[in-house]
Amino acid sequence: MAEQITPRATSYSDWYIDIVLRARLADYSPVKGCMVIRPQGYALWEKMQSALDAMFKQTGHQNAYFPLLIPESFMKKEAEHVEGFAPELAVVTHGGGEQLDEPLVIRPTSETIIWSMYKKWIQSYRDLPILINQWANVVRWEKRTRLFLRTTEFLWQEGHTAHANEAEAREEALRMLEVYRTFAEEYMAIPVLTGVKSESEKFAGAVDTYAIEAMMQDRKALQAGTSHFLGQNFAKAFDVTFQSREGALELVWATSWGVSTRLIGALIMAHSDDSGLVLPPKLAPIQAVIVPIFKNQNKAQVVEYAEKLRAELAGLVSVKLDTDDNNSPGWKFSEYEMLGIPVRIEIGPRDMEAGKAVLVRRDSGVKEAVPAGEVGARVVQLLAEIQSGLYERAKKFRDENTFDVDDYAKFREMFEGESNAGFVRSPWCGNAECEARVKAETKATIRVLPFGNEDHTAGRKCLVCGNEARHLAIFAKSY
Amino acid sequence: MAEQITPRATSYSDWYIDIVLRARLADYSPVKGCMVIRPQGYALWEKMQSALDAMFKQTGHQNAYFPLLIPESFMKKEAEHVEGFAPELAVVTHGGGEQLDEPLVIRPTSETIIWSMYKKWIQSYRDLPILINQWANVVRWEKRTRLFLRTTEFLWQEGHTAHANEAEAREEALRMLEVYRTFAEEYMAIPVLTGVKSESEKFAGAVDTYAIEAMMQDRKALQAGTSHFLGQNFAKAFDVTFQSREGALELVWATSWGVSTRLIGALIMAHSDDSGLVLPPKLAPIQAVIVPIFKNQNKAQVVEYAEKLRAELAGLVSVKLDTDDNNSPGWKFSEYEMLGIPVRIEIGPRDMEAGKAVLVRRDSGVKEAVPAGEVGARVVQLLAEIQSGLYERAKKFRDENTFDVDDYAKFREMFEGESNAGFVRSPWCGNAECEARVKAETKATIRVLPFGNEDHTAGRKCLVCGNEARHLAIFAKSY
Repeated sequence: MAEQITPRATSYSDWYIDIVLRARLADYSPVKGCMVIRPQGYALWEKMQSALDAMFKQTGHQNAYFPLLIPESFMKKEAEHVEGFAPELAVVTHGGGEQLDEPLVIRPTSETIIWSMYKKWIQSYRDLPILINQWANVVRWEKRTRLFLRTTEFLWQEGHTAHANEAEAREEALRMLEVYRTFAEEYMAIPVLTGVKSESEKFAGAVDTYAIEAMMQDRKALQAGTSHFLGQNFAKAFDVTFQSREGALELVWATSWGVSTRLIGALIMAHSDDSGLVLPPKLAPIQAVIVPIFKNQNKAQVVEYAEKLRAELAGLVSVKLDTDDNNSPGWKFSEYEMLGIPVRIEIGPRDMEAGKAVLVRRDSGVKEAVPAGEVGARVVQLLAEIQSGLYERAKKFRDENTFDVDDYAKFREMFEGESNAGFVRSPWCGNAECEARVKAETKATIRVLPFGNEDHTAGRKCLVCGNEARHLAIFAKSY
Repeated sequence: MAEQITPRATSYSDWYIDIVLRARLADYSPVKGCMVIRPQGYALWEKMQSALDAMFKQTGHQNAYFPLLIPESFMKKEAEHVEGFAPELAVVTHGGGEQLDEPLVIRPTSETIIWSMYKKWIQSYRDLPILINQWANVVRWEKRTRLFLRTTEFLWQEGHTAHANEAEAREEALRMLEVYRTFAEEYMAIPVLTGVKSESEKFAGAVDTYAIEAMMQDRKALQAGTSHFLGQNFAKAFDVTFQSREGALELVWATSWGVSTRLIGALIMAHSDDSGLVLPPKLAPIQAVIVPIFKNQNKAQVVEYAEKLRAELAGLVSVKLDTDDNNSPGWKFSEYEMLGIPVRIEIGPRDMEAGKAVLVRRDSGVKEAVPAGEVGARVVQLLAEIQSGLYERAKKFRDENTFDVDDYAKFREMFEGESNAGFVRSPWCGNAECEARVKAETKATIRVLPFGNEDHTAGRKCLVCGNEARHLAIFAKSY
C-alpha cells in the first residue's frame, strides 16, 4: 500500500485502475472481462444497495428473483430487443452432460423472462400494478472492459413494473429516475443531469429511455442510471393483456429501470485524488479511523485513551481503531487515505496530555485539534461538511465545464483529437443524421436531452444542419 | 386464495407444492428446473439473509463477489471435486456470437475460482486468515426438481476461508456449523442435529463435511446447511502456499460453508399446516395483520380505531392493516392464514365499543380478547410464545420420532416400502459397504454421525455386519 499511484495528470485511466487495485476494490479474474469484487469494494456496494433498496421499498416496490437462464427464443420476441442484445449474449448449449434442445442465454437483462411470468400473473386490472425489483448478476459479452465501468458480468438491480395505462407507467419511469437522481446527489454526492435519451442511444425495446448523466474529473460523461418507459412492447411480444375496469381486453404498459456496480466506478472518478479513494461519508463503510501514535513505553496509555474515544464514537459513526504496531503511523496515514476513509483521528502522547485529538479531513487534508469531549460532535459535523463539500465541488466542476455552443466549427474545436471541453449544450434538429455526423467527427454523443430546456430552442438552429432546433442536447465524450 | 390446499394426510408432497404456489412464495418458470421466487418468498429470504449476514459479520467475515463463470479446466484440478460436479454442470460454449476457445461453466459452487484468486492474494502468514463470504446464485443441473428443495438454479451464500494451520481451519468450520445451528434453532425454530457426514455423503473435495440435519413433518430428514473442512485439497490444486512465521513455505488450509433457498422449503415443511404457511415470528415479513370488520355505515369509525391501533403497533412489530372492502373478513382470515402471518387482530364494532381487540394465533388458532391499551404488549408477548412454541413442537415431534435400534431386521421393518419411522440411531462399523447395503435395502441413508455420541458405541455391534461399532449414526430417509 506504500506504492504510489499514477497521478491523474500523467494518465487518468492508469490512475483509475491503480485506485481500484490498490484500494483493493476489485481485481482481475481468470475469466476474460469478469472482475472479482473484493471486500473493500463489496462493502461500498452493500452501502449503495441498502440506501437504494430502502428507497425502492418506500416507493412501493417489492423484491423478487427470476431465473438467470432465458430460452434463446424469448430474446427474439421483441425485434429491437434482440437486435440490441444478440451480439452480447453468452449461450449455454450443454447441461448435465447433454446438449440442450434449445440453447439458453444468460440474462443480459430480464424483460423477456419477467414478462413471460407476468403473462401468468396478470388477468385483470385488479392484478395491476405490479411493482417488482430484483438484485441480480447479468452477463453482456463486452469486447473492451474496464473494472466496474464495463465488465462482462456485473451486479445490478432491475425494476420491472406493469401498469394499466400509459400515464401511470410514464409516471413510474419518471419516479424512479427521480429516485436515482436523489441517490446520486444525496448519497454519492454527484450532481447529475436528468433527461431523455435520443433514439439512437435509448434501450433496445424502450419507447423512451430516461437517464441520469454525471461528469467525471476528466470531463467525460458517465451514464449512471436509466429508467425506461417500455410502452406496450413487451406486452405485445409476450401477449400480456388484462381486463380493464370497463371490461375491455387491453395490453399492459411497462417500465424497467436499473443501476449497477458501474456506480462504484463513477464514485471513484468523481471524487478521488492522487492519494487514493475519496468517499462520500454516507457511503463510506468506515467513516472515521483512529490512529494512535505511540512508542513502546507509552503504548498502553495511548491505546487506552484511544479506546475510550472509539467507544464514544461508536454510537455516532462507523469507526475503526488501528492499534497494530507492525505498521508505522505514517504508513497508516497513507493506507487510510488510499482507502478513502473520510476522517482520520490522530492521537499522540502530547494530544493525550493536552486532552485533545487531531482530526484530518480526507477531502481537503485540513487538520484541527479538538478537545476530547467534543470529538464525537465534531466528527459528525465534519462528515456532513465533507458530504456537502464533495457535492459542491463536483457541481462547481461540472458547471465550469458546461458550455452553450451554437456554432459547429467552435464545437468541433472543443472536442478535436484528444481535447475534451466537457458538456456542451447545443441546439439540435432531432435528426439522427446530424447526431451521427457529430459522433463521427468529434466522438461526442448526445448524452441526454435535459428536462427543463424545452423553452430554450425558440429561434435557434441545429448545430449541424442549420434547420430549426427542436431540442437542446447535452453533447459529451463518454464512458 | 379461497381455494383449498391438499391436506397433508392426503399427499404430503402435493400439500407442500400447494403451499408454495398458493402462498405465492415461488412459481414454475419457463426454464426447466428453475423457479421464480415471488415477492412473498423473497421477503422471507431477505429476512434470513439479514439475520445470517449479521452473524457472519459478527464472526469476522466480509462479503465479496467472484465471477459466475469458471473456466472448465479449473473444475478438473481437484479430482474428487470434478467427479462430484461434472454431471451437474451447465456449460457456456458461445459468447458475443463466437465459439469460446475454452468452455466456461456456470458456478455450481465457487471453490475453484476463489482459490485461483487466493493464490494471487496470499504470500505470507500475514495475509491469513482470509474470511470471505459471498451471496450468489449457483446452477446445478438436476434431473428431478422441487420448488425450493432442489432447483437447477438456487440462491445461497458460500463462505470460503483460508488459514495458516489445520486447527484454525477446523475450528472455523465448526464455528460456522454452530452459526447455522443457532440460526436454524433460534430464527427458523427448527431443532437440528449437528455432526459429521460419512465419506459417501460428504462434499466433493472436502476432508470432512459437517452438517445440520432437521426432521420434517413427514419424518424425512432435510440437510439444512453444511460446513466443510477442506484440508489442503484446494491449496494443492491451485498451488496456494504461504511463508510461515518461521520462514517455511506451506500449503494453505481451507474451509467452505453454505446454506441456500432450500431453507425456505425446510421452513414450510417443519411448521406449516393444512390451512397454509406457518412462519416463526422472527422470520415473518409481516408479524401481525389487523382485519377490521365493518359494514358500510360504520366503516369510518372502525377503520379509524384500527388505524390508531396500527400506529401504536408499528413501533413494536411489523404490522399490516387491511381496509380493502373488496374482500370479506372471512376471505381475509383464510388469506392471512395461508400467508402464515403469526398474529391476526380482528376488530369489529362490538370490540370497538368494548375497547378491545381479538388476537388470534396462527399456530394454534387460539383467540383472546385484549383491552386496546394492552394490545401492543400482548402481541409482542404472543410472538415470543409462538416462536418458542414452534420450536418446542418441532423438537417434541423429532424426539418422539427418533429411535435407537441395534437390530437390522427391526430397522428394515421401520423403513420398509413407504414406511418411514423417522430418525433411527444405530451403531455402525464405519464400513461403506454396510452403509450402501442399508441404502439399497431401505432407502435410508446416514444423515450424520452426531456429535457427542462417541462414548455410546462401546460394546455395540454394527447394525449390518455385526462387527465392532465405531460410530453411532443417524439413519433416515431424506430430501
